[in-house]
Amino acid sequence: MSMAKTLHKIKCKVSYDGGAYGGFQLQENVVTIQQMLEEALLSIVKEPTRIYGSGRTDAGVHAKEQVFHFHTTIQIPEDRWPLAFNKKLPEDIVVLEAAYVPDHFHARFDVVEKTYRYCLWNHRLPNIFKRRYSWHVPYSLDIGAMRQAASFLIGEHDFTSFCSSKAVVEDKVRHVYEISIEEEESGEIWLTFRGKGFLYNMVRIMVGTLVQVGSGKYSCEAVKDILDAKDRHQAGVTAPAQGLFLWNVKY
Amino acid sequence: MSMAKTLHKIKCKVSYDGGAYGGFQLQENVVTIQQMLEEALLSIVKEPTRIYGSGRTDAGVHAKEQVFHFHTTIQIPEDRWPLAFNKKLPEDIVVLEAAYVPDHFHARFDVVEKTYRYCLWNHRLPNIFKRRYSWHVPYSLDIGAMRQAASFLIGEHDFTSFCSSKAVVEDKVRHVYEISIEEEESGEIWLTFRGKGFLYNMVRIMVGTLVQVGSGKYSCEAVKDILDAKDRHQAGVTAPAQGLFLWNVKY
Repeated sequence: MSMAKTLHKIKCKVSYDGGAYGGFQLQENVVTIQQMLEEALLSIVKEPTRIYGSGRTDAGVHAKEQVFHFHTTIQIPEDRWPLAFNKKLPEDIVVLEAAYVPDHFHARFDVVEKTYRYCLWNHRLPNIFKRRYSWHVPYSLDIGAMRQAASFLIGEHDFTSFCSSKAVVEDKVRHVYEISIEEEESGEIWLTFRGKGFLYNMVRIMVGTLVQVGSGKYSCEAVKDILDAKDRHQAGVTAPAQGLFLWNVKY
Repeated sequence: MSMAKTLHKIKCKVSYDGGAYGGFQLQENVVTIQQMLEEALLSIVKEPTRIYGSGRTDAGVHAKEQVFHFHTTIQIPEDRWPLAFNKKLPEDIVVLEAAYVPDHFHARFDVVEKTYRYCLWNHRLPNIFKRRYSWHVPYSLDIGAMRQAASFLIGEHDFTSFCSSKAVVEDKVRHVYEISIEEEESGEIWLTFRGKGFLYNMVRIMVGTLVQVGSGKYSCEAVKDILDAKDRHQAGVTAPAQGLFLWNVKY
């Protein structure tokens, strides 16, 4: 007769600098965040343990707060989990907090809302201290026009035009709750995107297109036509990964 | 009969991320900022040209604005110099501006005032996006006590206790015009030091000592005794290089 061990479910928040990684999700031939977290976890709980993220982030994209969960029979106090992880993790990945959660919780399926933020460095000269965490746009931008164009992207739309043509999902309808654009005195411009979920490269293509509205390549109204076209080739460039942060995941 | 070529003197502002370098000044067996600037300059003007900085910065220390000058017979418009340099420089060094200056100007001897700033990340958890540009101090700090202690360092003093014992200069009297300590909502604490000049490691030892006042290791008044002792061993730790920025040089 064997005693069944109790299985605990743990939800963690993690912050990472994506610069050195091939994205969140496990992949062949490239080091990923998930791999680093699973390796750290293996050395804590001494058995291979799968972790489940709230979703992927692309190669080079950062997370201020990503969420993942895992199961384990090991029970240690909630506030010890981050310390245990961080002792095993490199300095560009930090587990911020951990909590025991009911077994029905799922880091991916239970997401209610995600916030992404994108940082532009809008100055004639590069800012070397921001180079890993922003997109340097050296020409002046019409922020008013960008805000106007962004307003056409808010709401429920078919975002086929704003989705990588490599994406495999069928349903390209997504609901964007909010897009805000804030200029800071320092020269940074922060674009914030809030929605239930986003397609592959969607935030980066929205940013690239909005920047091209700001520089005068597209009119504000062109964004409506781009949406209607349902064709990736109609939209603007994909903004580089290093300016993008998964900022927050709500449950 | 040869025509003497006119020699022009050029003053440049440069920003650098010191993380990958052995400091500003040329050294054997380690890559320095000066070396990178002189190599870039060689490929522009096609002859070896010495540059003169406003002073050294230690290995790992950054500069928001360092100043240097050089002589050349090449004359190109002022606003083309930064572009010419930046084409040859790596992405962690950027020449911000250049100006032709009278021949009596000297980047080191004509300094009127220097400002250094130091960034603390004061939070229980590390901030991975600041890790290259701040010192993570995970315990709480008594900012009031730090400000009080800092007030004893302002003015003209013999800073022997706040100078690396490796320093070779005789005269350790320096005049600190201002020290300010600002807490930001984000969790950053910025210490600003303004003075005509600083000794080797002086800002970093002042920061280390002030942090140890903030944590309760030293009383505010202890700083007066430390100054009086004229002994490096009496002062606190040397704060790590990566939090320090040469912020500005005035002429």
